[in-house]
Amino acid sequence: MPAGTPYTIPAKAREIRLAKHLEGALTPDHFDLVDVEVPEPGPGEVVVRMDHLGVAAAYQDLMRTDCQLPLPPYQVGARIGGGETGTVVASNSPDLAVGDLVQSMTGWCEYSVGPASSYFKLPAGLFPSTSYFLCQGPTAYYGMADMARAGEGDVVFVSGAAGGVGSLAGQIAKCRGAARVIGSAGSKEKVAYLVDELGFDAAFDYHDGPVADRLAELAPEGIDVFFDNVGGEQFEAALQAARPHARFALCGALSVQNGAGQASFPRFDLMTAITRHVELRPFACYHTPEQIGAWIQHFATWLGEGRFVFPQTVVEGGIEAAPEALLSLLKGAYRGNVSVAL
Amino acid sequence: MPAGTPYTIPAKAREIRLAKHLEGALTPDHFDLVDVEVPEPGPGEVVVRMDHLGVAAAYQDLMRTDCQLPLPPYQVGARIGGGETGTVVASNSPDLAVGDLVQSMTGWCEYSVGPASSYFKLPAGLFPSTSYFLCQGPTAYYGMADMARAGEGDVVFVSGAAGGVGSLAGQIAKCRGAARVIGSAGSKEKVAYLVDELGFDAAFDYHDGPVADRLAELAPEGIDVFFDNVGGEQFEAALQAARPHARFALCGALSVQNGAGQASFPRFDLMTAITRHVELRPFACYHTPEQIGAWIQHFATWLGEGRFVFPQTVVEGGIEAAPEALLSLLKGAYRGNVSVAL
Repeated sequence: MPAGTPYTIPAKAREIRLAKHLEGALTPDHFDLVDVEVPEPGPGEVVVRMDHLGVAAAYQDLMRTDCQLPLPPYQVGARIGGGETGTVVASNSPDLAVGDLVQSMTGWCEYSVGPASSYFKLPAGLFPSTSYFLCQGPTAYYGMADMARAGEGDVVFVSGAAGGVGSLAGQIAKCRGAARVIGSAGSKEKVAYLVDELGFDAAFDYHDGPVADRLAELAPEGIDVFFDNVGGEQFEAALQAARPHARFALCGALSVQNGAGQASFPRFDLMTAITRHVELRPFACYHTPEQIGAWIQHFATWLGEGRFVFPQTVVEGGIEAAPEALLSLLKGAYRGNVSVAL
Repeated sequence: MPAGTPYTIPAKAREIRLAKHLEGALTPDHFDLVDVEVPEPGPGEVVVRMDHLGVAAAYQDLMRTDCQLPLPPYQVGARIGGGETGTVVASNSPDLAVGDLVQSMTGWCEYSVGPASSYFKLPAGLFPSTSYFLCQGPTAYYGMADMARAGEGDVVFVSGAAGGVGSLAGQIAKCRGAARVIGSAGSKEKVAYLVDELGFDAAFDYHDGPVADRLAELAPEGIDVFFDNVGGEQFEAALQAARPHARFALCGALSVQNGAGQASFPRFDLMTAITRHVELRPFACYHTPEQIGAWIQHFATWLGEGRFVFPQTVVEGGIEAAPEALLSLLKGAYRGNVSVAL
């Protein structure tokens, strides 16, 4: 172990592995919490003590063998997760110093050891907590800024607006000058949260009758931008409400991801899309350095100007709380971006 | 009547009017062939003798009161049609001279009289016949070049490829460097026509089993570009065959336009579109001067280089043949772009 670290590094630490592939419903049985040795770092390697573990709906998809995401699915017996922040507690590399904050994609663990190049160094002091780096901001920003190009005067509709991506996407649209931002969510509490705390101009509970009726009330002259996290009926209604040359950023399809299957695919009214020249941009954000950088710069600026609320849920309880946090997230129990504090 | 015209202008000529709005199936009863006076041209006006009348599937849509196209629907008792070429046979305007070739959107008639500004002057000698100006080239070119951005090395699939737009779109892709162009059509004769006469690399009859199976055979590594005139199953199969970052130019939905209704809307597999980052561009071409100009320039160049076959059907028999020509076009009886010679 390199000399001079003020941190005590335990000999063993815990990590969470995939116990078996997901076929039906996700249960605690799909997770294994195991003790593993924390090895000495080799040349060029560092030891990182994790501070926050990210929790996202995509993790469930990665547990299936037929996962469609453009990422390698989880292997049985290997770590799950894939977005964490931590502190360098020992370093054999000139590129990272003890005390540096880093982001990694090594999975849910208490300590990780690996080459310095596999960690992304974070600026210190930019945000109140490293949990701010675990949000789905790059996806929300890329979708709203690059795909939908939301801007001055636009009427914007965000489906699944209380989720990690949606709660950021709506605020991004406001910060870019949108005239009116409308969100849909799955409960009265979330609707109030969107309007009272996140600054949405209007919101509705999608259980309250047809989405098309709610949009007709809340956006009587139609929408210019749709940011979709849900698919299904919300997509169909948004297309009927589209103004000419509307832009649709299609980010997710929770209505399918939660297992409803092909029956929940929306019907695509091609003639309406054609005659209104609606641009549809289904997209996945690959979190390139450019995409992360563009988000962090705007996020820090808007937070500093007091124009942005960071919607997050930090789950306490250590690494053993992570599986239950994912189960709760999938049930819609949380608001905003979710992480587990270690 | 201005002096000096070498043409004899009759006192009366014929035009075709909408007899009643379309609700069910289109029949000869929806058309009225009437005799009208050819008025003297006023100041700034010209008299045009029509040479070719365009025939397009969109004319049927414009006969419905609930037409979705971004054009004013036809009124009962007023002319139908909307794309003709002719020759100026009398002029009271300095902008057009007797003998000039012009394009108009005044509808199916033998003679039309109106302000010179309502006619678009055509270059003489560019093409073998003025019927070449009546094709759906601006739509095909805008879709393939601006929406789908087909280019070097692309594998391209065109649905409804033997139609006016599709027969041009496939050739445009080849001229822009596509590696392989595949077309679908509704008969063995049309399939042979696409491959033997228009230079498509492969084609199939969509009656021959699932479209997805034909695409898997003919484009085993998937498609980069889809130019859709049909919708329905062809759209669904194309999305499953899409390579990452494929571009879809969505031009028409014949499967709906022919009255099959909502049941024929394709199911939209959002997750496949999202994970493959497929760009969908539903579009309508408004035939702006820029769009027409871009097409005519490339069309003339490619024809001159011997790289392009103009797929057209010219129906003889005078203006009275126009209604039957539209009915035949809707039944799929023709290949390529259709006009009636006067």
